[in-house]
Amino acid sequence: MRDCSLAVTSMWALSFKLGVEVLAAVRLEILKEDIKTRARLGRLHTPHGMIETPVFMPVGTQATVKSMTPEELEEIGAGIILSNTYHLFLRPGPELIRAAGGLHSFMHWGGAILTDSGGFQVFSLGDLRRISEEGVEFRSHLDGSRQFLSPEIATEVQMVLGSDIVMAFDECAPYPCSHEYARDSSARTTRWAARCKETLGVSAGQALFGIVQGGTFKDLRRESAAGITALDLPGYAVGGLSVGEPKEVMYEILDDTVPLLPADRPRYLMGVGSPDALIEGVMRGIDMFDCVLPTRIARNGTALTRFGKLVVRNATVARDFSPIDPTCDCYTCRHYSRAYVRHLLKADEILGLRLMTIHNLRFLQNLMREIREAIAAERLPAYRREFFVGYGYPL
Amino acid sequence: MRDCSLAVTSMWALSFKLGVEVLAAVRLEILKEDIKTRARLGRLHTPHGMIETPVFMPVGTQATVKSMTPEELEEIGAGIILSNTYHLFLRPGPELIRAAGGLHSFMHWGGAILTDSGGFQVFSLGDLRRISEEGVEFRSHLDGSRQFLSPEIATEVQMVLGSDIVMAFDECAPYPCSHEYARDSSARTTRWAARCKETLGVSAGQALFGIVQGGTFKDLRRESAAGITALDLPGYAVGGLSVGEPKEVMYEILDDTVPLLPADRPRYLMGVGSPDALIEGVMRGIDMFDCVLPTRIARNGTALTRFGKLVVRNATVARDFSPIDPTCDCYTCRHYSRAYVRHLLKADEILGLRLMTIHNLRFLQNLMREIREAIAAERLPAYRREFFVGYGYPL
Repeated sequence: MRDCSLAVTSMWALSFKLGVEVLAAVRLEILKEDIKTRARLGRLHTPHGMIETPVFMPVGTQATVKSMTPEELEEIGAGIILSNTYHLFLRPGPELIRAAGGLHSFMHWGGAILTDSGGFQVFSLGDLRRISEEGVEFRSHLDGSRQFLSPEIATEVQMVLGSDIVMAFDECAPYPCSHEYARDSSARTTRWAARCKETLGVSAGQALFGIVQGGTFKDLRRESAAGITALDLPGYAVGGLSVGEPKEVMYEILDDTVPLLPADRPRYLMGVGSPDALIEGVMRGIDMFDCVLPTRIARNGTALTRFGKLVVRNATVARDFSPIDPTCDCYTCRHYSRAYVRHLLKADEILGLRLMTIHNLRFLQNLMREIREAIAAERLPAYRREFFVGYGYPL
Repeated sequence: MRDCSLAVTSMWALSFKLGVEVLAAVRLEILKEDIKTRARLGRLHTPHGMIETPVFMPVGTQATVKSMTPEELEEIGAGIILSNTYHLFLRPGPELIRAAGGLHSFMHWGGAILTDSGGFQVFSLGDLRRISEEGVEFRSHLDGSRQFLSPEIATEVQMVLGSDIVMAFDECAPYPCSHEYARDSSARTTRWAARCKETLGVSAGQALFGIVQGGTFKDLRRESAAGITALDLPGYAVGGLSVGEPKEVMYEILDDTVPLLPADRPRYLMGVGSPDALIEGVMRGIDMFDCVLPTRIARNGTALTRFGKLVVRNATVARDFSPIDPTCDCYTCRHYSRAYVRHLLKADEILGLRLMTIHNLRFLQNLMREIREAIAAERLPAYRREFFVGYGYPL
């Protein structure tokens, strides 16, 4: 992987040991702010490498980006991935990953890792969980066993994982939900974020990101942003969006909320990965995104292409010997035809899932690169228009 | 893949066009004959590269070695793979592969390909098939549709696939079976082989291998070998073994049959891939092997190691951070622990199947390399002893 990663880690560790907190574990260097939109071009410095922003982070829920090796992730251009505290907490468990020397070592990944806090998954369990001020009791989806996560435990687990970016333990309120529910929930998320900060302390090489909640209520979003940013954290996420609300509602919330986040810190929009929302998010000032969409639809046989989604399973491509996307430079498009990939998918062959996943992830990496180039060239709105027209999105 | 493959193919094609059959499409160059055993060290020259023998061929049933890319096959050292006529005949069908420019192009594999004839699969269908002198009528395992394969059709399909080695359409008699059944069946297989030869003609770049049958009856094996070798084919296989009979019976048949095959032609033992049988087969004069064993048990969570089989799914390796086989140089063993691979298998992650498959295939490639080195050093019996002791096989 990256030979320099150990040296970089040591340097960061050293700066903390000396008590000279000259550098945060994770820091956003802003190269350019767009004049036409709120987009920013930057470099996210982490203990495991520098990542150009805006960036899309592939999701590696169970300590693996489904079907991919770390080398393949590097080849498609990924420098940072997301992994899930909830899943790793239950299986294989933090003690095993501690014994393995942390998540990077366990999964052989030399790039940066952001771990979510488990909040999203726990709250998705519905009837299987019980919330208190202390934390959340829930039943494991694996074996039904009784489990408990709190801001302290979720943070401690992430400290064991050794992720570069630790997400605060939050409640992601459902959509729709009442103003009262959203208010109580986001206020608790703010109190919990303070406990996460207290727990992490100045853990060398790890940065805590707070999460703004508040549902689709602008007043609550503002309250939440004020409370979370008051904690002076190295980064901020917008959570609780892309959970079923119309995209216009998400864009409105972003229009309203993002300007409340400090301009010098990275901003991360959680759970967003459709091409249109990536572009719209960047234009509203977002630097980081993650989503299971590209990998999940890949395994279902749907490819992202410059010309819209292509259902590679469909009979229409059975005798189509062109690449999935003729404009794509990924391993799949360089070497295989739609007909072959379709054959693999129809025959339930693992290589089919791999080739689809490689393509979709590379497609989003290329999209993000083009977005960055468009910001640099001060033509992001024009790029949006061109991309939307090609993809078939309404303008 | 291999940039030279096109040039080589053209050269072979040319030699046939000129009517100068100076080179068979596939030819075995024998480098050394062991003095203590019947083992031979050689080079199999094919239109898609030279392969050192004895060789184990990974199985790519549906135009893909399960979970592997062609580049990964090259990395583990595979120069020739097997693919299955029966499966490709049914899906995606020969017409699609013809349109793709043949199987090599369809699946992006620059190495050599041996295709079986479909006989083994068709005869495995039991009640779903009806045999006549003309061929076999059967029902597809995919959709129950009525299908027909004959020596001519099986050969024509393989001509479309463009495999380097075309296997004759044979009947693999079940074990056990009566002397009468085995006699009629192997006699028909010999008549069918002549029809396959007639059908292939001097197809440029393709070599037909005949298959010796005869069940576990030495007299029938001798008759079959006499009939098949009378066809003067570029290679011969021993079929109908490793179908349930005790290994000692297989070794006895090999002791008796292999000497009847011409020494200057490659000899292929079908469906054998356990480490002991590979070594025993080589000592009895076999040059080529194939088997789904390494890839199939990999996906079930069992690894081949120098110290015997390791069930990586077992709880005993849950906290074992050593590689699957500390003596192995494969990608998996270089970068991952047993604990991580077990985690992936338990979590049903595709990467787990990939890492296991890479390891098992590399293990057999290394075994075959060591066998070749032992032949070169004239110490194959000693190597057998050492390997058997380490693996835990009885001597």
